[in-house]
Amino acid sequence: MTIDEARAEFPVFERFAYLNAGTNGPLARPTVAAMVERAQADLELGRGGAEYFSSTLEQRERVRAKLAATVGVAAESLSLSTSTTNGCNIVLSGLQLEPSDEVLTTDGEHFGLLGALAASTAQVQVALVRELPPEESLQVLLDAITPATKLIALSHVCWMSGNRYPVEELRRESGLPVLVDGAQSAGAIPVDAAAVDFYAFSCQKWLCGPDATGGLVVRDPEALAVTAPSYLSQQAYEPTGSFTPRDGAARFDSNWTPVPSLAGLSAALDMAPEGRFERAAELTARCRELLAERVELVTALDQATLVTFRAEGDTRELVHGLYDAGVVVRDIPGLGWLRVSCGWWTSEEDLDRLVGALP
Amino acid sequence: MTIDEARAEFPVFERFAYLNAGTNGPLARPTVAAMVERAQADLELGRGGAEYFSSTLEQRERVRAKLAATVGVAAESLSLSTSTTNGCNIVLSGLQLEPSDEVLTTDGEHFGLLGALAASTAQVQVALVRELPPEESLQVLLDAITPATKLIALSHVCWMSGNRYPVEELRRESGLPVLVDGAQSAGAIPVDAAAVDFYAFSCQKWLCGPDATGGLVVRDPEALAVTAPSYLSQQAYEPTGSFTPRDGAARFDSNWTPVPSLAGLSAALDMAPEGRFERAAELTARCRELLAERVELVTALDQATLVTFRAEGDTRELVHGLYDAGVVVRDIPGLGWLRVSCGWWTSEEDLDRLVGALP
Repeated sequence: MTIDEARAEFPVFERFAYLNAGTNGPLARPTVAAMVERAQADLELGRGGAEYFSSTLEQRERVRAKLAATVGVAAESLSLSTSTTNGCNIVLSGLQLEPSDEVLTTDGEHFGLLGALAASTAQVQVALVRELPPEESLQVLLDAITPATKLIALSHVCWMSGNRYPVEELRRESGLPVLVDGAQSAGAIPVDAAAVDFYAFSCQKWLCGPDATGGLVVRDPEALAVTAPSYLSQQAYEPTGSFTPRDGAARFDSNWTPVPSLAGLSAALDMAPEGRFERAAELTARCRELLAERVELVTALDQATLVTFRAEGDTRELVHGLYDAGVVVRDIPGLGWLRVSCGWWTSEEDLDRLVGALP
Repeated sequence: MTIDEARAEFPVFERFAYLNAGTNGPLARPTVAAMVERAQADLELGRGGAEYFSSTLEQRERVRAKLAATVGVAAESLSLSTSTTNGCNIVLSGLQLEPSDEVLTTDGEHFGLLGALAASTAQVQVALVRELPPEESLQVLLDAITPATKLIALSHVCWMSGNRYPVEELRRESGLPVLVDGAQSAGAIPVDAAAVDFYAFSCQKWLCGPDATGGLVVRDPEALAVTAPSYLSQQAYEPTGSFTPRDGAARFDSNWTPVPSLAGLSAALDMAPEGRFERAAELTARCRELLAERVELVTALDQATLVTFRAEGDTRELVHGLYDAGVVVRDIPGLGWLRVSCGWWTSEEDLDRLVGALP
């Protein structure tokens, strides 16, 4: 499927310049068709019988393998989660840090990661890198490490500024475990999740999957405690609940993914066209170029697929006005920033519409 | 809507004697229609814009109120969860028990509860009540309490035997906090979740909701730590992630419920006909009566809506054979038991078909 053929499968583009995949991606017809087909089958045939369960469990493993490939790891390293947040909570809870331990993060993180850090007993250190040029953030982060630092937890791409953080370099140079919030990277840019220890991501954003689908990569599953086990986590258990975890990262599967969502996610992953990362990068560069003539950009050159800029006045009002003009973007509350999400599906016309609708 | 009118909305009954709501309930046409309508809207309009989020958040609160009413509590006491398992994990993790603490449970529990107990650091004590007459279980459980017991955690209705456990009496007589696994009770029998401290349940079983929907009742939300926060858990947060929880049990909301699932759950809850509990009890009694002529029953008289009996030979094979004869039930692995789930929707014909298909 070419990029143009794939784009034609997303009806939302006929209506909107839909530039908000950083929140929720567009949905394709085959994705929703798969969800609807499965829901209709469940209605007619019921959600029971050996075949229903065996085929769903097989489908889970196929989706696990596809999703793992998407972020460059083996299926054994991937847990099917409900969200980036869910993945971050699994990691922080499983690490069982002590109150004297420290976790290093940045001032550019989403609550999906920060909440998990706050819920752990460790001390949270916040490095101020959000407004720095990206090439300076590595050193600032390395300098913030102390002997008590047990984990570095940060996003691959900052949801606010759109800039990348140096996750691989941090791991290499610090030798510390790194947890990556991949919400704004998985599906948007090439990801090698094997280069870090934990990689949590969502599928409803850049992978255009159904709501509440996600993945968590765990490099060494044996070394992380299973603290919120589900029936899917175990292969055998005692009357006290003491259990033998499943092999690999499947032990962290926290939930029975709704069967229609599983079917939709599978279809969505199959849609991803060749050349998508190159095309997304091109369109993002074009977006940046067009915006630079009109506004002050926050996002640096050659980052990922978000383009953030400073806006005048009430950004919430501005977002509403753009929506009414058929342009879907979001603001970053408290910073006076607007964020545009470009994807492989974005067209020049979408960008013209955005720029034309700016006050 | 009368019971007969409501039953007519479930197409699975045209095909099967569907007697497995203890695993997954039947789905009604309005439920799936609401899911499909929402998924189609998300396809066409995108999952963005202020209206999308405000209407979804309002829908969450409406569903929270309906679900709370279903188990006899105020909306402020109910968290929207993904499953009974999710609810049990939220409670055990939030209680932050010590290794010297004990939790008392039974030998009739599902891994959804047991896994959460095992993941806590507390010692798990297992009272052997599964094969006792129900009227004897209260005393056995009370006798198993020690000075170290900090929680009693058990099901309202045993998923294996179908017998009730005396959850309200346990709380009254012990004075200890009680966590109830309501997977086999919510929607099946009248539930007063306000009578215990924590009540975790699923909506895809007896409430006929979409996959991976559930509720958790927390009597005193302020007294339970939020250990797996989501964006929905907080009303304000600091750069370290330190946060002010939302009021009430909404702080435990672990997940963005898929918007189509939320619509489906709302429709499913609206379907519940008057007189459903009485009808379910009648049909369960009738099921018991018919089976008693043929097999040895496990479930005592006047329990809930499960009827379990001892089966000869390989129960898995037996379940397959019944499925091929259009009868959907399940076995209880390792015990040689078969379990029949009756509901308000069950007909005399369904039961005749079951009995007729037994070898």
